Amino acid sequence: MIFGFDGGELKILLIERNEEPFKDWWALPGNLVRANESLDQSASRILNELTGLGDIYMEQYYTFGDPDRHPQGRVVSIAYYALLRLGGDKALKPISTYAKQAHWVNVKDLPKLAFDHQQIFDKGLEKIKRRIKHQPIAFELLPEKFTLTQLQNVYELILGKKLDKRNFRKKMLSFGVLRDLDEKQKGVSFRAATLYRFDKRKYAKLFGKEISF
Amino acid sequence: MIFGFDGGELKILLIERNEEPFKDWWALPGNLVRANESLDQSASRILNELTGLGDIYMEQYYTFGDPDRHPQGRVVSIAYYALLRLGGDKALKPISTYAKQAHWVNVKDLPKLAFDHQQIFDKGLEKIKRRIKHQPIAFELLPEKFTLTQLQNVYELILGKKLDKRNFRKKMLSFGVLRDLDEKQKGVSFRAATLYRFDKRKYAKLFGKEISF
Repeated sequence: MIFGFDGGELKILLIERNEEPFKDWWALPGNLVRANESLDQSASRILNELTGLGDIYMEQYYTFGDPDRHPQGRVVSIAYYALLRLGGDKALKPISTYAKQAHWVNVKDLPKLAFDHQQIFDKGLEKIKRRIKHQPIAFELLPEKFTLTQLQNVYELILGKKLDKRNFRKKMLSFGVLRDLDEKQKGVSFRAATLYRFDKRKYAKLFGKEISF
Repeated sequence: MIFGFDGGELKILLIERNEEPFKDWWALPGNLVRANESLDQSASRILNELTGLGDIYMEQYYTFGDPDRHPQGRVVSIAYYALLRLGGDKALKPISTYAKQAHWVNVKDLPKLAFDHQQIFDKGLEKIKRRIKHQPIAFELLPEKFTLTQLQNVYELILGKKLDKRNFRKKMLSFGVLRDLDEKQKGVSFRAATLYRFDKRKYAKLFGKEISF
Protein backbone atom coordinates (compact mmCIF):
# COMPACT_ATOMS: atom_id res chain seq x y z
CA MET A 1 0.00 0.00 0.00
CA ILE A 2 1.98 2.94 -1.34
CA PHE A 3 0.83 6.36 -0.22
CA GLY A 4 2.03 9.52 -1.88
CA PHE A 5 1.33 13.15 -1.03
CA ASP A 6 1.72 15.83 -3.68
CA GLY A 7 1.31 18.81 -1.36
CA GLY A 8 -2.45 18.86 -1.74
CA GLU A 9 -3.86 15.38 -2.12
CA LEU A 10 -3.21 12.01 -0.57
CA LYS A 11 -2.86 9.36 -3.25
CA ILE A 12 -2.39 5.65 -3.42
CA LEU A 13 -0.73 3.63 -6.13
CA LEU A 14 -3.04 1.13 -7.79
CA ILE A 15 -2.50 -1.26 -10.65
CA GLU A 16 -5.00 -2.38 -13.24
CA ARG A 17 -5.11 -6.15 -13.31
CA ASN A 18 -4.57 -8.03 -16.49
CA GLU A 19 -6.11 -11.42 -15.99
CA GLU A 20 -9.49 -13.02 -15.33
CA PRO A 21 -11.52 -12.98 -13.17
CA PHE A 22 -10.20 -9.54 -12.24
CA LYS A 23 -9.36 -8.19 -15.69
CA ASP A 24 -9.67 -4.38 -15.67
CA TRP A 25 -10.14 -4.31 -11.89
CA TRP A 26 -7.95 -2.14 -9.74
CA ALA A 27 -5.75 -3.66 -7.08
CA LEU A 28 -2.95 -2.86 -4.66
CA PRO A 29 0.43 -3.63 -6.21
CA GLY A 30 2.30 -6.74 -5.11
CA ASN A 31 4.34 -9.62 -6.34
CA LEU A 32 5.87 -12.91 -5.29
CA VAL A 33 8.64 -13.16 -2.72
CA ARG A 34 11.80 -14.61 -4.24
CA ALA A 35 13.51 -17.65 -2.76
CA ASN A 36 16.54 -15.82 -1.42
CA GLU A 37 15.23 -12.50 -0.21
CA SER A 38 13.81 -11.46 3.14
CA LEU A 39 10.27 -10.09 3.33
CA ASP A 40 11.58 -6.54 3.78
CA GLN A 41 13.91 -6.90 0.80
CA SER A 42 11.05 -8.20 -1.27
CA ALA A 43 8.81 -5.27 -0.37
CA SER A 44 11.58 -2.78 -1.21
CA ARG A 45 12.31 -4.47 -4.51
CA ILE A 46 8.66 -4.46 -5.56
CA LEU A 47 8.33 -0.77 -4.64
CA ASN A 48 11.49 0.02 -6.56
CA GLU A 49 10.43 -1.93 -9.67
CA LEU A 50 7.18 0.00 -9.73
CA THR A 51 8.31 3.53 -8.91
CA GLY A 52 12.06 3.56 -9.43
CA LEU A 53 12.38 4.82 -5.85
CA GLY A 54 14.53 3.53 -3.03
CA ASP A 55 15.11 4.46 0.61
CA ILE A 56 11.40 4.88 1.29
CA TYR A 57 9.76 4.56 4.71
CA MET A 58 7.97 1.20 4.88
CA GLU A 59 6.36 -0.87 7.59
CA GLN A 60 5.03 -4.38 7.48
CA TYR A 61 1.54 -4.14 8.99
CA TYR A 62 -0.49 -7.31 8.57
CA THR A 63 -0.67 -10.67 6.88
CA PHE A 64 -3.78 -11.83 5.05
CA GLY A 65 -4.33 -15.51 4.47
CA ASP A 66 -7.97 -16.55 4.33
CA PRO A 67 -8.19 -19.79 2.37
CA ASP A 68 -10.66 -18.40 -0.18
CA ARG A 69 -9.21 -14.95 -0.77
CA HIS A 70 -7.77 -15.87 -4.17
CA PRO A 71 -9.73 -17.82 -6.79
CA GLN A 72 -6.72 -19.87 -7.87
CA GLY A 73 -5.77 -21.30 -4.50
CA ARG A 74 -4.45 -20.16 -1.19
CA VAL A 75 -2.34 -17.04 -1.33
CA VAL A 76 -0.81 -15.49 1.78
CA SER A 77 -0.13 -11.77 1.34
CA ILE A 78 2.20 -9.95 3.70
CA ALA A 79 1.14 -6.32 3.56
CA TYR A 80 3.43 -3.30 3.88
CA TYR A 81 2.64 0.36 3.73
CA ALA A 82 5.02 2.91 2.27
CA LEU A 83 4.86 6.69 2.60
CA LEU A 84 6.53 8.98 0.08
CA ARG A 85 6.48 12.48 -1.28
CA LEU A 86 5.27 12.87 -4.85
CA GLY A 87 6.99 15.28 -7.16
CA GLY A 88 8.93 15.47 -10.38
CA ASP A 89 7.86 13.29 -13.25
CA LYS A 90 8.48 9.80 -12.12
CA ALA A 91 7.22 7.34 -14.68
CA LEU A 92 5.41 4.38 -13.24
CA LYS A 93 5.76 0.96 -14.73
CA PRO A 94 3.64 -2.07 -14.02
CA ILE A 95 5.75 -4.58 -12.16
CA SER A 96 4.43 -7.82 -13.51
CA THR A 97 2.36 -9.61 -16.05
CA TYR A 98 -0.51 -9.22 -13.57
CA ALA A 99 -0.77 -5.55 -14.30
CA LYS A 100 -1.72 -3.53 -17.36
CA GLN A 101 -0.89 -0.14 -15.92
CA ALA A 102 -0.24 1.69 -12.67
CA HIS A 103 -1.84 4.94 -11.48
CA TRP A 104 -1.80 7.32 -8.54
CA VAL A 105 -5.39 7.54 -7.34
CA ASN A 106 -6.81 10.02 -4.82
CA VAL A 107 -7.75 8.03 -1.70
CA LYS A 108 -11.05 9.92 -1.67
CA ASP A 109 -11.93 8.38 -5.04
CA LEU A 110 -10.95 4.80 -4.40
CA PRO A 111 -12.46 2.50 -7.05
CA LYS A 112 -13.79 -0.98 -6.28
CA LEU A 113 -10.78 -3.15 -5.56
CA ALA A 114 -10.09 -6.75 -6.57
CA PHE A 115 -9.79 -9.68 -4.14
CA ASP A 116 -9.85 -8.60 -0.47
CA HIS A 117 -7.82 -5.49 -1.26
CA GLN A 118 -10.41 -3.15 0.23
CA GLN A 119 -9.93 -4.95 3.53
CA ILE A 120 -6.14 -4.72 3.17
CA PHE A 121 -6.47 -1.00 2.48
CA ASP A 122 -8.77 -0.46 5.48
CA LYS A 123 -6.47 -2.33 7.84
CA GLY A 124 -3.44 -0.40 6.62
CA LEU A 125 -5.16 2.95 6.98
CA GLU A 126 -6.23 2.01 10.52
CA LYS A 127 -2.60 1.21 11.38
CA ILE A 128 -1.32 4.45 9.86
CA LYS A 129 -3.99 6.45 11.71
CA ARG A 130 -2.84 4.93 14.97
CA ARG A 131 0.84 5.44 14.22
CA ILE A 132 0.59 9.01 13.00
CA LYS A 133 -0.69 9.98 16.45
CA HIS A 134 2.41 8.69 18.18
CA GLN A 135 5.27 8.79 15.71
CA PRO A 136 6.38 11.48 13.27
CA ILE A 137 5.66 9.52 10.10
CA ALA A 138 3.73 12.40 8.52
CA PHE A 139 7.04 14.01 7.59
CA GLU A 140 7.78 11.13 5.23
CA LEU A 141 5.01 12.43 2.99
CA LEU A 142 6.11 16.07 2.94
CA PRO A 143 8.63 17.85 0.74
CA GLU A 144 11.84 18.99 2.41
CA LYS A 145 10.42 22.46 2.95
CA PHE A 146 6.79 22.63 3.89
CA THR A 147 4.21 24.92 5.42
CA LEU A 148 2.25 24.20 8.59
CA THR A 149 -0.89 24.13 6.44
CA GLN A 150 0.58 21.28 4.40
CA LEU A 151 1.52 19.42 7.55
CA GLN A 152 -1.99 19.84 8.95
CA ASN A 153 -3.38 18.78 5.57
CA VAL A 154 -1.51 15.46 5.78
CA TYR A 155 -2.92 14.80 9.25
CA GLU A 156 -6.44 15.69 8.21
CA LEU A 157 -6.32 13.52 5.10
CA ILE A 158 -5.05 10.51 7.00
CA LEU A 159 -7.27 10.92 10.05
CA GLY A 160 -10.24 11.78 7.84
CA LYS A 161 -11.30 14.78 9.91
CA LYS A 162 -10.71 18.50 10.34
CA LEU A 163 -8.38 19.64 13.11
CA ASP A 164 -8.36 22.93 14.96
CA LYS A 165 -5.71 25.09 13.32
CA ARG A 166 -4.53 26.90 16.45
CA ASN A 167 -4.22 23.81 18.63
CA PHE A 168 -2.55 21.87 15.85
CA ARG A 169 0.14 24.51 15.30
CA LYS A 170 0.78 24.98 18.98
CA LYS A 171 1.21 21.27 19.54
CA MET A 172 3.40 20.68 16.50
CA LEU A 173 5.72 23.54 17.35
CA SER A 174 5.96 22.38 20.97
CA PHE A 175 7.89 19.23 20.02
CA GLY A 176 10.84 21.30 18.89
CA VAL A 177 11.46 19.32 15.71
CA LEU A 178 10.33 22.01 13.27
CA ARG A 179 12.85 24.59 12.20
CA ASP A 180 11.52 27.91 10.93
CA LEU A 181 13.44 28.59 7.69
CA ASP A 182 12.82 32.32 7.74
CA GLU A 183 11.72 31.88 4.18
CA LYS A 184 8.36 32.24 2.53
CA GLN A 185 6.43 30.00 0.18
CA LYS A 186 7.06 30.92 -3.47
CA GLY A 187 4.51 31.56 -6.18
CA VAL A 188 2.07 32.97 -3.66
CA SER A 189 1.85 36.73 -3.65
CA PHE A 190 -0.71 37.26 -0.93
CA ARG A 191 0.05 36.07 2.60
CA ALA A 192 2.71 33.57 1.64
CA ALA A 193 3.21 31.08 4.46
CA THR A 194 6.42 30.41 6.34
CA LEU A 195 8.37 27.37 5.29
CA TYR A 196 9.60 24.83 7.79
CA ARG A 197 12.06 22.02 7.65
CA PHE A 198 12.31 19.35 10.25
CA ASP A 199 15.41 18.96 12.34
CA LYS A 200 16.76 15.56 11.40
CA ARG A 201 18.73 14.99 14.57
CA LYS A 202 15.84 15.81 16.85
CA TYR A 203 13.56 13.90 14.54
CA ALA A 204 15.68 10.76 14.84
CA LYS A 205 15.57 11.01 18.62
CA LEU A 206 11.83 11.53 18.61
CA PHE A 207 11.30 8.61 16.28
CA GLY A 208 12.59 6.18 18.85
CA LYS A 209 10.06 7.38 21.41
CA GLU A 210 6.34 7.37 21.91
CA ILE A 211 4.94 10.84 21.57
CA SER A 212 1.36 11.99 21.64
CA PHE A 213 1.07 14.07 18.50
CA MET B 1 3.49 -15.69 22.11
CA ILE B 2 1.15 -16.57 24.98
CA PHE B 3 1.37 -14.32 28.03
CA GLY B 4 -0.23 -15.28 31.31
CA PHE B 5 -0.45 -13.34 34.57
CA ASP B 6 -0.98 -15.19 37.84
CA GLY B 7 -1.59 -12.11 39.98
CA GLY B 8 2.08 -11.66 40.76
CA GLU B 9 4.24 -12.67 37.81
CA LEU B 10 4.10 -12.28 34.08
CA LYS B 11 4.74 -15.59 32.36
CA ILE B 12 5.10 -16.86 28.85
CA LEU B 13 4.35 -20.30 27.54
CA LEU B 14 7.37 -22.06 26.07
CA ILE B 15 7.78 -25.52 24.62
CA GLU B 16 10.84 -27.72 24.76
CA ARG B 17 11.76 -28.80 21.26
CA ASN B 18 12.13 -32.41 20.38
CA GLU B 19 14.24 -32.55 17.29
CA GLU B 20 17.74 -31.64 16.15
CA PRO B 21 19.38 -29.17 15.82
CA PHE B 22 17.22 -27.65 18.55
CA LYS B 23 16.64 -30.69 20.75
CA ASP B 24 16.15 -29.56 24.37
CA TRP B 25 16.00 -25.90 23.34
CA TRP B 26 13.08 -23.75 24.37
CA ALA B 27 10.88 -22.14 21.77
CA LEU B 28 7.65 -20.22 21.34
CA PRO B 29 4.79 -22.60 20.56
CA GLY B 30 3.49 -22.82 17.02
CA ASN B 31 2.32 -25.18 14.37
CA LEU B 32 1.37 -25.44 10.72
CA VAL B 33 -1.64 -23.68 9.26
CA ARG B 34 -4.15 -26.17 7.88
CA ALA B 35 -5.39 -25.98 4.31
CA ASN B 36 -8.92 -24.86 5.16
CA GLU B 37 -8.53 -22.54 8.09
CA SER B 38 -7.90 -18.81 8.24
CA LEU B 39 -4.80 -17.51 10.01
CA ASP B 40 -6.88 -16.39 13.01
CA GLN B 41 -8.60 -19.77 13.23
CA SER B 42 -5.24 -21.46 13.08
CA ALA B 43 -3.84 -19.35 15.90
CA SER B 44 -6.91 -20.03 18.08
CA ARG B 45 -6.76 -23.74 17.40
CA ILE B 46 -3.08 -23.96 18.31
CA LEU B 47 -3.68 -22.02 21.52
CA ASN B 48 -6.60 -24.28 22.38
CA GLU B 49 -4.70 -27.48 21.66
CA LEU B 50 -1.96 -26.34 24.00
CA THR B 51 -3.92 -24.84 26.89
CA GLY B 52 -7.48 -26.10 26.48
CA LEU B 53 -8.61 -22.47 26.52
CA GLY B 54 -10.84 -20.62 24.09
CA ASP B 55 -12.15 -17.07 23.76
CA ILE B 56 -8.75 -15.53 24.51
CA TYR B 57 -7.63 -12.08 23.42
CA MET B 58 -5.23 -12.46 20.48
CA GLU B 59 -3.64 -10.15 17.95
CA GLN B 60 -1.61 -10.94 14.90
CA TYR B 61 1.48 -8.73 15.21
CA TYR B 62 4.19 -9.56 12.68
CA THR B 63 5.33 -12.04 10.07
CA PHE B 64 8.86 -13.41 10.06
CA GLY B 65 10.25 -14.84 6.85
CA ASP B 66 14.01 -14.49 6.49
CA PRO B 67 15.21 -17.17 4.07
CA ASP B 68 17.70 -18.65 6.56
CA ARG B 69 15.66 -18.56 9.76
CA HIS B 70 14.98 -22.31 9.73
CA PRO B 71 17.70 -24.89 9.00
CA GLN B 72 15.40 -27.11 6.96
CA GLY B 73 14.28 -24.54 4.42
CA ARG B 74 12.24 -21.40 4.26
CA VAL B 75 9.55 -21.13 6.90
CA VAL B 76 7.28 -18.10 7.16
CA SER B 77 5.91 -17.64 10.67
CA ILE B 78 2.90 -15.43 11.31
CA ALA B 79 3.18 -14.33 14.92
CA TYR B 80 0.28 -13.68 17.29
CA TYR B 81 0.29 -12.64 20.89
CA ALA B 82 -2.34 -13.82 23.35
CA LEU B 83 -3.04 -12.44 26.83
CA LEU B 84 -4.75 -14.52 29.48
CA ARG B 85 -5.23 -14.82 33.22
CA LEU B 86 -3.61 -17.82 34.86
CA GLY B 87 -5.45 -19.69 37.55
CA GLY B 88 -6.85 -23.08 38.42
CA ASP B 89 -4.88 -26.12 37.46
CA LYS B 90 -4.88 -26.17 33.73
CA ALA B 91 -2.76 -28.98 32.43
CA LEU B 92 -0.62 -28.05 29.48
CA LYS B 93 -0.01 -30.46 26.68
CA PRO B 94 2.57 -30.18 23.92
CA ILE B 95 0.77 -29.54 20.68
CA SER B 96 2.92 -31.42 18.25
CA THR B 97 5.69 -33.88 17.69
CA TYR B 98 8.00 -30.85 17.71
CA ALA B 99 7.58 -30.47 21.44
CA LYS B 100 8.54 -32.60 24.42
CA GLN B 101 6.79 -30.48 27.02
CA ALA B 102 5.28 -27.07 27.65
CA HIS B 103 5.95 -24.73 30.59
CA TRP B 104 4.96 -21.33 31.91
CA VAL B 105 8.20 -19.38 32.30
CA ASN B 106 8.65 -16.06 34.08
CA VAL B 107 9.50 -13.48 31.41
CA LYS B 108 12.27 -12.23 33.68
CA ASP B 109 13.97 -15.64 33.42
CA LEU B 110 13.68 -16.22 29.71
CA PRO B 111 16.04 -19.01 28.59
CA LYS B 112 17.95 -18.97 25.31
CA LEU B 113 15.39 -19.51 22.57
CA ALA B 114 15.65 -21.58 19.39
CA PHE B 115 15.61 -20.18 15.85
CA ASP B 116 14.88 -16.42 15.74
CA HIS B 117 12.38 -16.72 18.58
CA GLN B 118 14.15 -14.15 20.73
CA GLN B 119 13.56 -11.66 17.93
CA ILE B 120 9.91 -12.74 17.67
CA PHE B 121 9.56 -12.28 21.43
CA ASP B 122 11.20 -8.83 21.37
CA LYS B 123 9.01 -7.62 18.53
CA GLY B 124 5.86 -8.87 20.25
CA LEU B 125 6.76 -7.25 23.55
CA GLU B 126 7.45 -3.98 21.73
CA LYS B 127 3.98 -4.14 20.14
CA ILE B 128 2.30 -4.95 23.47
CA LYS B 129 4.16 -2.11 25.18
CA ARG B 130 2.88 0.28 22.58
CA ARG B 131 -0.66 -1.06 22.71
CA ILE B 132 -0.99 -1.15 26.49
CA LYS B 133 -0.49 2.61 26.53
CA HIS B 134 -3.47 3.25 24.29
CA GLN B 135 -5.88 0.35 24.68
CA PRO B 136 -7.14 -1.43 27.78
CA ILE B 137 -5.56 -4.80 27.05
CA ALA B 138 -4.06 -5.09 30.55
CA PHE B 139 -7.48 -6.22 31.81
CA GLU B 140 -7.21 -9.38 29.73
CA LEU B 141 -4.46 -10.53 32.07
CA LEU B 142 -6.28 -9.82 35.33
CA PRO B 143 -8.79 -11.92 37.28
CA GLU B 144 -12.38 -10.67 37.31
CA LYS B 145 -11.82 -8.93 40.65
CA PHE B 146 -8.49 -7.26 41.09
CA THR B 147 -6.72 -4.67 43.18
CA LEU B 148 -5.16 -1.49 41.83
CA THR B 149 -1.79 -2.88 42.92
CA GLN B 150 -2.29 -5.88 40.66
CA LEU B 151 -3.28 -3.62 37.78
CA GLN B 152 -0.19 -1.47 38.30
CA ASN B 153 1.88 -4.63 38.57
CA VAL B 154 0.76 -5.73 35.10
CA TYR B 155 1.72 -2.36 33.63
CA GLU B 156 5.10 -2.37 35.35
CA LEU B 157 5.92 -5.90 34.25
CA ILE B 158 5.04 -5.20 30.62
CA LEU B 159 6.64 -1.77 30.42
CA GLY B 160 9.66 -3.00 32.36
CA LYS B 161 9.74 -0.02 34.73
CA LYS B 162 8.31 1.27 37.99
CA LEU B 163 5.39 3.69 37.83
CA ASP B 164 4.42 6.34 40.34
CA LYS B 165 1.64 4.84 42.47
CA ARG B 166 -0.36 8.01 43.02
CA ASN B 167 -0.34 9.16 39.40
CA PHE B 168 -1.12 5.68 38.17
CA ARG B 169 -4.20 5.34 40.39
CA LYS B 170 -5.46 8.79 39.60
CA LYS B 171 -5.17 8.21 35.87
CA MET B 172 -6.71 4.75 35.92
CA LEU B 173 -9.68 5.86 37.98
CA SER B 174 -10.20 8.89 35.74
CA PHE B 175 -11.26 6.74 32.77
CA GLY B 176 -14.38 5.65 34.60
CA VAL B 177 -14.08 2.01 33.60
CA LEU B 178 -13.19 0.67 37.06
CA ARG B 179 -16.02 -0.15 39.41
CA ASP B 180 -15.26 -0.17 43.14
CA LEU B 181 -16.77 -3.42 44.43
CA ASP B 182 -16.99 -2.22 48.03
CA GLU B 183 -15.28 -5.47 48.88
CA LYS B 184 -11.87 -6.25 50.30
CA GLN B 185 -9.20 -8.67 49.21
CA LYS B 186 -9.46 -11.99 51.09
CA GLY B 187 -6.73 -13.87 52.94
CA VAL B 188 -5.05 -10.60 53.89
CA SER B 189 -5.67 -9.50 57.46
CA PHE B 190 -3.71 -6.28 57.53
CA ARG B 191 -4.68 -3.45 55.19
CA ALA B 192 -6.57 -5.58 52.70
CA ALA B 193 -6.95 -3.70 49.42
CA THR B 194 -10.19 -2.76 47.71
CA LEU B 195 -11.25 -4.97 44.85
CA TYR B 196 -12.27 -3.56 41.51
CA ARG B 197 -14.03 -4.95 38.53
CA PHE B 198 -14.08 -3.29 35.18
CA ASP B 199 -17.30 -2.08 33.69
CA LYS B 200 -17.76 -4.18 30.57
CA ARG B 201 -20.01 -1.73 28.75
CA LYS B 202 -17.72 1.22 29.28
CA TYR B 203 -14.77 -1.01 28.56
CA ALA B 204 -16.21 -2.02 25.17
CA LYS B 205 -16.73 1.63 24.28
CA LEU B 206 -13.23 2.52 25.36
CA PHE B 207 -11.74 -0.35 23.42
CA GLY B 208 -12.84 1.14 20.13
CA LYS B 209 -11.04 4.37 20.88
CA GLU B 210 -7.54 5.62 21.28
CA ILE B 211 -6.86 6.51 24.91
CA SER B 212 -3.66 7.60 26.52
CA PHE B 213 -3.33 5.28 29.46
